[in-house]
This record gives sequence, C-alpha cells and structure tokens, in this order.
Amino acid sequence: MTESPRGTRLDPWHGSYAARTQGMRASEIRSLFAVANRPEVVSLAGGMPNLADLPMERYADTIAQMLRMHGSRALQYGSGQGEVELRERITEVMSLEAVNAHPDDVVVTTGSQQALDLLARIFLDPGDVVVAEAPSYVGALGVFRAYEADVVHTPMDDEGLVPEAFEETLSRLKREGRRVKVLYTIPNFQNPGGVTMSLARRHAVIEVARRHGVLILEDDPYGLLSFDGEPLPAMASIAPDDVVFLGSFSKTFAPGYRVGWAHAPHAIRERLVLANESAILCPSNASQLSVAAYLANFDWRAQIKDFRVMYAERRDALVSALAEYIPNASWTTPEGGFFVWVRLPAGLDAREMLPRAVTARVAYVPGTAFFADGAGSTHMRLSFCYPTPERIVEGVRRLAGVVNAEADLVAMFGSTQQHPHGLDAPATGTT
Amino acid sequence: MTESPRGTRLDPWHGSYAARTQGMRASEIRSLFAVANRPEVVSLAGGMPNLADLPMERYADTIAQMLRMHGSRALQYGSGQGEVELRERITEVMSLEAVNAHPDDVVVTTGSQQALDLLARIFLDPGDVVVAEAPSYVGALGVFRAYEADVVHTPMDDEGLVPEAFEETLSRLKREGRRVKVLYTIPNFQNPGGVTMSLARRHAVIEVARRHGVLILEDDPYGLLSFDGEPLPAMASIAPDDVVFLGSFSKTFAPGYRVGWAHAPHAIRERLVLANESAILCPSNASQLSVAAYLANFDWRAQIKDFRVMYAERRDALVSALAEYIPNASWTTPEGGFFVWVRLPAGLDAREMLPRAVTARVAYVPGTAFFADGAGSTHMRLSFCYPTPERIVEGVRRLAGVVNAEADLVAMFGSTQQHPHGLDAPATGTT
Repeated sequence: MTESPRGTRLDPWHGSYAARTQGMRASEIRSLFAVANRPEVVSLAGGMPNLADLPMERYADTIAQMLRMHGSRALQYGSGQGEVELRERITEVMSLEAVNAHPDDVVVTTGSQQALDLLARIFLDPGDVVVAEAPSYVGALGVFRAYEADVVHTPMDDEGLVPEAFEETLSRLKREGRRVKVLYTIPNFQNPGGVTMSLARRHAVIEVARRHGVLILEDDPYGLLSFDGEPLPAMASIAPDDVVFLGSFSKTFAPGYRVGWAHAPHAIRERLVLANESAILCPSNASQLSVAAYLANFDWRAQIKDFRVMYAERRDALVSALAEYIPNASWTTPEGGFFVWVRLPAGLDAREMLPRAVTARVAYVPGTAFFADGAGSTHMRLSFCYPTPERIVEGVRRLAGVVNAEADLVAMFGSTQQHPHGLDAPATGTT
Repeated sequence: MTESPRGTRLDPWHGSYAARTQGMRASEIRSLFAVANRPEVVSLAGGMPNLADLPMERYADTIAQMLRMHGSRALQYGSGQGEVELRERITEVMSLEAVNAHPDDVVVTTGSQQALDLLARIFLDPGDVVVAEAPSYVGALGVFRAYEADVVHTPMDDEGLVPEAFEETLSRLKREGRRVKVLYTIPNFQNPGGVTMSLARRHAVIEVARRHGVLILEDDPYGLLSFDGEPLPAMASIAPDDVVFLGSFSKTFAPGYRVGWAHAPHAIRERLVLANESAILCPSNASQLSVAAYLANFDWRAQIKDFRVMYAERRDALVSALAEYIPNASWTTPEGGFFVWVRLPAGLDAREMLPRAVTARVAYVPGTAFFADGAGSTHMRLSFCYPTPERIVEGVRRLAGVVNAEADLVAMFGSTQQHPHGLDAPATGTT
C-alpha cells in the first residue's frame, strides 16, 4: 500500500476521535506562517507585537534578581487562580479602562486565549450559539468550533457592533429555538475590523444582551494601545455583573510568557478556577513573577505610551501607502491596535489571490478566516504591528502590483465573487 | 432573602452553564491546601517537589544570559508545537527510558496536565469509558470527568496493573456495549499506589490493549526518579504506535515553568498541535527557553541522581516511621517517585479521620480522592517529597496518635467501614 507523507496516511486511531475533533482544522493564518516568516516576505499577516523597544538588558538583570530573591517560589507549583501580587497589578492595569476590579475576581490564564477556551468549556454545549461581530477574531472562532458551538455573526459599522441588528439577530435566533449563550465582542480596535465600539453603543449593546439573558465576553487585548486619546470605559466597567473581561499582557508587554486573565462575576470566577485547575493545574509561577517584576520595576505606563507612538506611525505608513498604491480599494482607519480591514476592488477574491501575493513576497490574511460562514472573500486583514514603516510601504507596493494585475484580469474575464457580508469598510477609511 | 457567602449565593448565570460544568468540583486535595500549607502542619498531602538543592544563583545568571542573547525570541509568540531546541532535548530525556523519540513527534504543553486535557479533548465524547488503575491520579480523574467520560477502575497488585483483570474489564465493558477509548496508566511509582509495572506486565498490558483497539496513555512524571536502579523501558518504547507518552519537567527540574510534553504517533501528534493552538495559541517561549537553558548549561543527569538520593532518604524515613509508629497499618514501599499508599487498620475511615489529623497538625490525602466510584476510604496517600526526613517522622508520629485514638474508638463502638477496593497494600509493604 502506498502512503503519501500527509493527509491520506492511514491513521489507525481514526475511529477513536471525539466528535469535536472533526471540527479541528489548521487556521488559514497558521498555514501561512511557514511562508510568511521567510525574511524576503513582507508579512502583513501575523499579529506579533514589536518588542524591539523593550529594555532587554535591564530586564534580564531584573529577572535574575527576581530568581535570586524568589526563585524557590517562581519554580514551584502555585495557585490555580494565579499569584495575588500579579492579580493586584492586573487591577491597576484594568483601572486604565475604568474597571473597578478586585484581585479576587481575576483568574490568571495561559494567555487570554486560554481564558476564552475555559469560558467556552464552562458555557458551551454542542449546538449552543455564540453571537460574534462580522468579521471576528479567527482564534475565537476556532475555540467555539472546538466546543461544537455555532457562531452567528452580527454586523458592525464604523461605530462597532450595531445594537439594532444585534437585537434582531437575537430575536431571530430565539424564534428559531436556538440557545444563545454569549456575545463575543472585541470593542476596541477590533480584530480584524479595526473599528471601536462607541460609548453609546456599549450601553446599548449591554442593554440588548441583558434583555436576552446573554453573557458578554469582552475581549480586550488592544484596549490600551489607542493612538488618538485615552481608552473608552470597558464594557465591564459599565455592567460588571453581565460581562467577563479578557485581558492580556501580550500586546502591552510581551506574549512570550503567555500571561492573560479573565475578570468575571464571582460565581463564574469560581468555575473558571476549577476549569483552570483541571486544564493545567495552575498557571506558571515563573511567568507570573516575571511579568509582576516587569510591572514593579519598569515604568510600564510610559512604555505603553511609547508603543502607541510606534504603532501609530506604522498605522499611518500603512494607510498612506494604501491611499497611494491601491486607491481603488477601501479600508478602515483604526484609532489603535494592530489591524486594518481592507475591501478589495470589485470582483477580486482575497483567498484566491493569496498565492500570487506570496509569490510577490507579501502576505496578508484573507477575510474568509474571520467568518464562521464562508463569507469574507472580498476582504483582507493587513496588520501593521510587526514590520517597520518602510517595510510596510514596500509590502503595500508589492500588494498593489498583485491587486492591479488581478483587477485587469477581472476587467477582461469577469469574476465569480459573491456579495460582501458583514463589516463593509466604512467611508471614513477611504480617505 | 438571606445569602450565605458560598454555595447558595444566587448565580444569575446558573442556567447558562454547559452540562460538563456540573461535573466540575474542587478536588479533595485542593480543599486541603489551605490548612496543609500552614507552617505548623506537617503536610504529607501535596506532591510539591523539593527544589532546595537547585543551584539558584548560577541558574539566575544563566537565565539573565539567555534573555540577553535570545530575549526577543523568548518574549515573542512561538510555535503551537513548541520550540525545536527544547523538543530535541526532550528526546534525550526520553532516551533514558529507552524511547527512540523524534522531535517531530513531541508536542510541548503547559505541564503534562495540559497534555492530558488535550488528549481527553481529542478522544473523549460524553459517555466514553477511560480505564484506569485502582487507585489513580486525582488530576487525571478530574480531566476525564470534565469531558463527561466515565472512569472504570481495574486492579493493581505489587507488579502494577493486572493484565488478566484488565482483559476481563475490557470484555465486560464490551458486553455492556460501552465504548472504551483509552487506558490511562502511570507505570512507574504510581500515583498514589507507589507500585511499578514490571516489564513482563508492560508487554502483557500492551497486548490486551492492542487486541481491544484501546489507546494507551502512559503518564510518566516520576520515571527518572528511581531509587534502586535504572528505569524500566517505557511502554512507548515497546509499542510506539499504540502509546501516547506524557512527560514532565516538574519533578526532574521544576514545576514553575509548566513545561510538559506528549510524544504521540504521527496522526495524533498533528491533532494535538491543533488542539494546543486552539487552547493556548502556543506554549510559553520564555518557559521553554528557560528549561532548555537549564538542560544545556547544567549537568541535569547528575542533578536527577542527587534528587534520587534525597527522595530515597525521605522514602526511608516515611516507611521506617510507619513501621515504628503505625505497625497495625500496611503500605506499599515504592522504589521511586513521591508516594506511599497506606491501608489503615480495620474499621478506620481515612476521610472521616482527616479533620482530626489536621487538628493534630498532620495532613494526608484520603484514598477516596483517587477513585471515580467512591471507593478508597480505607486508604490514604502519604507523600514524602516535600518535608525533611525529620518532619516526615514527626508527621507520622502525629498521625499515629490519631490512628490509635481512632482504633480505640472502633474497638469500643465498631465502624461502618466498607470493604476495600482496588490496590490493597501488598505484603511486601508491611516489612
């Protein structure tokens, strides 16, 4: 019998997998990484933060000192909820978004991705519905799929999730007899949409969710990375009993420790701790004490301000380059975060175009990755977090070559592209 | 309405939880930690390794150097499978138990607990059966319960899991129409039984599992901590296509980084990576590079030998103290690892006795924690890993006072104790 190296190889355990395992598949981002990480490719695909500005020498000394002082604790098992000195620091971080958090209500997790996983585990039975923005974070869609839940998208505009449409979505699902458990939302500098939910919308969305008994999962990795002013109050500050807030140090400090957290109403927090213990026994003490040592010994607020300036410059580079090289596309202009959501010129398909873009040494994520229902081929996500401004401009220049060649082909032969769905790049982005 | 601080407090989200959340509860070990961690209590309850002998000063310098050299990688996102330089080191570690491992088949996880969680996620549908030794690791029982699987115990004796009984268990479950997916086993210095599966038994158990199409999860946190000779070949070395091997640095180096791994047949490994990405995106690069720096810069094999001597001394202290102070009990004498499994004198109930033991300033884990079916009250697990030999002897002396007082009561009033189940402390342990 002939076996090919992948895919068709016989798996003797094939009949043993759980039903949920059928839904596991490599994300479109993942299959891109192998090529996008080659140095000659300008990757506008990944969401890796730029860490070059961290004071690494002094940081290395700080960690050595932490190990000398607290090594036997850093290297030991800890609490399933996380170390209290880090949880106290986390409440300081959350106060910058107006949340009056208590350390008792914080659970430290292995990145906020694990918080998402634990919340899905606690709340989602197979067939339950999660409502999410259209488009939404690919990693969250993967988690909900892994728990065999169904994601139903609800539209955004340039003020974020539209409350009236959300209300309609919930009413329709109720009529259909579906069980909606949670709203998953990224209110700040949305991934991939790049838009921010206005304060009025936050109140309105909470009202709708409350009326329908739907818990809000507020995912906020980018909230402190605002370019043009102070952050808006988190939804958790407005409705602490109705919102689980997910936070992360991955973008404000560094992702390599995998330290994130959930801040949850008391009863949910207790279940999160039990779920965390079952999943990993306890989060890494070494990681937690390292992050706590950073927060205690460095001016982390000033560092975040430096990050804002650095990322704002990259956003500007990306948006100006789009205006210069691909004016026939449209896009969002985010006021923070990492991502711009681009609508391609009519007739182009971002997924089909990707291999040609990679050949031209530029990578992006096709919009289809951010929808649970196959929509999104008219869009792409461009990230401006990791490459330098010069590289970003070069990347857009390369992308323009591909887009224009593609547009010429469409003009000659037409296309099979479907109607766009969800967030259509608002007018503000086309300037 | 009156609300008590716990339990009966109204939870507005009570109706939203998933079915699996009903099975989540605090382990008996966990509820003990609050008292057992008080300094005046001798804790023979926990499984914390003794890290006092690690060369912390030099280690702190090593980590500072690692951060200076590789900080931007240590602090960044990494691969969902784990860093290749650590996976290569892991194959060296596994070679000490005769496994010819390949780095491609290793997946780094957040402690081996997370490997267990991911394997349960991949294989277990609600109602599936996991066969496990009687007794078995409390943390694994919790994972299987969280995935709504049923654990069926199968007996051990002083050579470990009994193949004939395992065969009978599988045949009975088949007749009952149950779907048995995996055997979960801890062949070396079993937790909590303290016994080791002989080489002949390893072959026989693999044969039985193979015949029934049952995957073996070989959990091996203590395998390198043998007191009286070299480790036996891992089951994964005998049947690499039928065994997923779970390894950990928690006992041979330190648990604080939460670095463990699974070594799996190719197709299972691919699914493990996808499940890992969904659960946490990627394991911590900082943790992985720290463990790799330890392995590269220290004589870790010699350190493990030192650990063996240190733990052997503690095992001796515990076993001698039992013989001196509680001769009317019986127990296993482990040839490695952390735990002794004690059968109490007739009529005593380890769970009922626990509050009186804690009052006498000694803690242990009642045997009931290690059974999915309520058995085990006649036994307790004593761990010798963390307290010094002197404290261990003092702990057993205190325990003897409680046991003797309890036995006097039983002699006067009788008891309601049930028949023991599963591993009954073998005769070898009573010397």
